[in-house]
Amino acid sequence: MKANLLYEGKAKQVYTVTDDPNLLVLSYKNDATAFNGEKKANFSGKGRYNNLIAAKVFEYLHVHGIPSHFKETLNETEQLVERTTIIPIEVVVRNVAAGSITRRLGITEKTPFQPPLIEFFYKEDALGDPIINDAHALFLTDATEADLAEIKAIAGKVNEQLQAFFKQVNLQLVDFKLEFGRNSTGKIVLADEISPDTCRLWDVETGEKMDKDVFREDLGDLVHVYDQILRRLEAVK
Amino acid sequence: MKANLLYEGKAKQVYTVTDDPNLLVLSYKNDATAFNGEKKANFSGKGRYNNLIAAKVFEYLHVHGIPSHFKETLNETEQLVERTTIIPIEVVVRNVAAGSITRRLGITEKTPFQPPLIEFFYKEDALGDPIINDAHALFLTDATEADLAEIKAIAGKVNEQLQAFFKQVNLQLVDFKLEFGRNSTGKIVLADEISPDTCRLWDVETGEKMDKDVFREDLGDLVHVYDQILRRLEAVK
Ligand SMILES: Nc1ncnc2c1ncn2[C@@H]1O[C@H](COP(=O)(O)OP(=O)(O)O)[C@@H](O)[C@H]1O
Ligand SMILES: Nc1ncnc2c1ncn2[C@@H]1O[C@H](COP(=O)(O)OP(=O)(O)O)[C@@H](O)[C@H]1O
Ligand SMILES: [Mg+2]
Ligand SMILES: [Mg+2]
Repeated sequence: MKANLLYEGKAKQVYTVTDDPNLLVLSYKNDATAFNGEKKANFSGKGRYNNLIAAKVFEYLHVHGIPSHFKETLNETEQLVERTTIIPIEVVVRNVAAGSITRRLGITEKTPFQPPLIEFFYKEDALGDPIINDAHALFLTDATEADLAEIKAIAGKVNEQLQAFFKQVNLQLVDFKLEFGRNSTGKIVLADEISPDTCRLWDVETGEKMDKDVFREDLGDLVHVYDQILRRLEAVK
Repeated sequence: MKANLLYEGKAKQVYTVTDDPNLLVLSYKNDATAFNGEKKANFSGKGRYNNLIAAKVFEYLHVHGIPSHFKETLNETEQLVERTTIIPIEVVVRNVAAGSITRRLGITEKTPFQPPLIEFFYKEDALGDPIINDAHALFLTDATEADLAEIKAIAGKVNEQLQAFFKQVNLQLVDFKLEFGRNSTGKIVLADEISPDTCRLWDVETGEKMDKDVFREDLGDLVHVYDQILRRLEAVK
């Protein structure tokens, strides 16, 4: 089914698909990177967890009225998705202050954001994914003002759904990163991955960090934590 | 007339005024700083030039329908202004790419921005004046969405007027920084300074930099350049 390796990123390989130019295979790798690729490691099993967790997230969003590029799980580490042209903006939604924003703006960790704070970063590794405003996004990408408004609206809805999704398994959704792409009809759709690599998740009871911060901050066994998340999600209903 | 030193900044001293709590004296210093205070020097005469040039700018803006805090020139280095509560946002308007944005976003110097690009920076020296978006501004300051829209609208009008103002003296307005404050009635007014310290100005004929970049990039005699600008402005009409 996989035809050619189209792109190899930091966390996934992207393959074209024989006979259907509108589909891609995303193959989740075991690599972990942080701080714009400065910190790197390989965790046996991580690709499988992100693949299976992302599938559960996209299925939940689908059922709750938020379409995405996700089509189906192919195997333990791969999923079939709709091919898009990615808009090079990383959309970050924050419910609670953590990570870079605490240092950048001097905001104490755990400060709540109400309404949730939405940030755009220009997806350009060579520049270190710099933060941008709407005017930069209009200049740097082909997105229009209406597109940016739509992206923010979808991001807000995803946030509401994901908060409920993770709350079921006793996890607080602190923040997360989304990517959007344009499909063959020109429609903007949610793409890339939603996983503990791209979300901050804190255990509601213990406050424990249960996401890639375990790797960023050397807090323990990353794969064990991802395994816990998948187990909790598999136990739902 | 000056009562107490209220604040000493990098470029100006700010004094209260006897008998009128709604006025301040801005006293322009000879100090120059760049790169968030990392580079420093003292230029005899600079304070006088910025004071006299800023006065001409604010008078021009006043005549062209853009009110500011400016009241009158008191002497060679001081001006009387309306006291405001500064909104801690540095508003940058860019007509052409130069300076930090070229490095931050990989945009080639001299790339034109149409429409002019507006950026907000959080005015907080301890954080290095980080760039922010509207959502950050709403969270970090008491400005409302309507206030931010008004600030952007005024900044756009200031840009149109200043482009015409500097064009009269053969200078291209590349970019500039504004600050806004709230006066005693709660109205948002243009405050702080507009000078070759806070604008990028390129000679229309030669392309020469005629602003604080002469200091930032060690291009020549800063005071001579500021003297040229004042002479050109004094020769108008
Ligand atoms: N549906 C899609 N269509 C096209 N490209 C996609 C889609 N979903 C994700 N991508 C892109 O595939 C790449 C995924 O690999 P990843 O390892 O995350 O890359 P990166 O190192 O750029 O973050 C990313 O560049 C992402 O933008
Ligand atoms: N009309 C005004 N009312 C109150 N404060 C003002 C007014 N105009 C300028 N200021 C403030 O006065 C200070 C001017 O000094 P400056 O040397 O430029 O300071 P800084 O080092 O903070 O840039 C700035 O903090 C500026 O925000
Ligand atoms: Mg990625
Ligand atoms: Mg200043």
